[in-house]
Amino acid sequence: MNVLIVHAHPEAGSFTTAMRDAAADTLTAAGHQVLISDLYEMKFNPVASANDFLSRANEDYLVYALEQRHADANGLLAPDIKVELDKVVWADLIIFNFPIYWFSMPAVMKGWIDRVFVSGRCYGGMRFYDRGGMKGKKALVALTLGGQPHMFDVDGVHGPLSEMLRHLLRGTLGYLGFEVLHPFVGWHVPYISQDARTALLDTYRARLRTLDSQKAMVFPSLDDFDDLLRPKASDAA
Amino acid sequence: MNVLIVHAHPEAGSFTTAMRDAAADTLTAAGHQVLISDLYEMKFNPVASANDFLSRANEDYLVYALEQRHADANGLLAPDIKVELDKVVWADLIIFNFPIYWFSMPAVMKGWIDRVFVSGRCYGGMRFYDRGGMKGKKALVALTLGGQPHMFDVDGVHGPLSEMLRHLLRGTLGYLGFEVLHPFVGWHVPYISQDARTALLDTYRARLRTLDSQKAMVFPSLDDFDDLLRPKASDAA
Repeated sequence: MNVLIVHAHPEAGSFTTAMRDAAADTLTAAGHQVLISDLYEMKFNPVASANDFLSRANEDYLVYALEQRHADANGLLAPDIKVELDKVVWADLIIFNFPIYWFSMPAVMKGWIDRVFVSGRCYGGMRFYDRGGMKGKKALVALTLGGQPHMFDVDGVHGPLSEMLRHLLRGTLGYLGFEVLHPFVGWHVPYISQDARTALLDTYRARLRTLDSQKAMVFPSLDDFDDLLRPKASDAA
Repeated sequence: MNVLIVHAHPEAGSFTTAMRDAAADTLTAAGHQVLISDLYEMKFNPVASANDFLSRANEDYLVYALEQRHADANGLLAPDIKVELDKVVWADLIIFNFPIYWFSMPAVMKGWIDRVFVSGRCYGGMRFYDRGGMKGKKALVALTLGGQPHMFDVDGVHGPLSEMLRHLLRGTLGYLGFEVLHPFVGWHVPYISQDARTALLDTYRARLRTLDSQKAMVFPSLDDFDDLLRPKASDAA
């Protein structure tokens, strides 16, 4: 497989960074090709703007998604976007590796998603969920957080982590058509012992060696909706 | 009331920008004080990093939340953060006004949240949800999107919008202690007529005139959890 690891952490010595390296080493040793986009190191610009297009279909009024389509089709995407989009096209698996900030990604990674998953190439019209442009590729979210598992039980104080991350797992990666693997979660990382951290990395490495046999998350199929995206079942009722 | 509108849209002529102005005009006419943080116009930096602190408690290893506490307590926050944090402290109501990007905020607004809601002052330890540091303040999310309401029905293709936005409504604003009003949603904005847009702005203005009588969203109370954040009910069972 071709594997892209998109990594964002402001501390180069962090455990999250050790997860990035464990993934790169493990996947390389298993014979895969690995590229890393280290967004802090790259000083990646996360702000979607008119500057993302070398020229525009409409210079007077910016509709970002329409300009993404126009620019991608005509070779007019800003170079920093084009480089990342080429990696996305190349990749069979994308790993998003980050510490949870506000039950989501750090802004620099959110901006990578805003700018790189361009309309047209990656999704658009009725091309989403199981018809999304990333169909055939896998995605894995690998994250760290301070909380403990019981806080994310169904009756826990926050409810299920997968529900907090629904905008990413379903609304972004599922929407794009990825086969979304269940997240790898580094629980309670700032508070655990060095031995526990070592064990957590071992668990992550074992997980990475068996990606092929893991079931993906289940999202809607557009087969169950009509051309106006109304549920077919209730439409017939 | 003191009202802060945090606005992010890359097109100054957008409908989302018209919503910003409708809110500012309506609330000012009702006798409220209004400040606007226009994140694109300000070229706000959304990337949390070591540069956010004039000096650090630990110069060798960055734990962002701990440095936020240290810097806030010692007057060491970067000036662009301090200006925004002062607005947050001043505000009785914060309106987050943005177009949906990937079922969340544009990265520049995510970064405003990452950097401005500092640990210690705004939340920390057992100070979250109904004990959060923003208790006594209201928050309103006002957003635009291309989708239509039926796509977000319980049996719709995406499921409820409030679930897609759970990381923001509950995980961020509820967690911080805000009284979170139900979002104002500008549905299908890129595709509707000028008359429909005018009507939508009128609906928004009417909503803004009756904020005092609106029920807030319901989130957990820490009274229902023990000191280890285990549910008290199941603990007693």
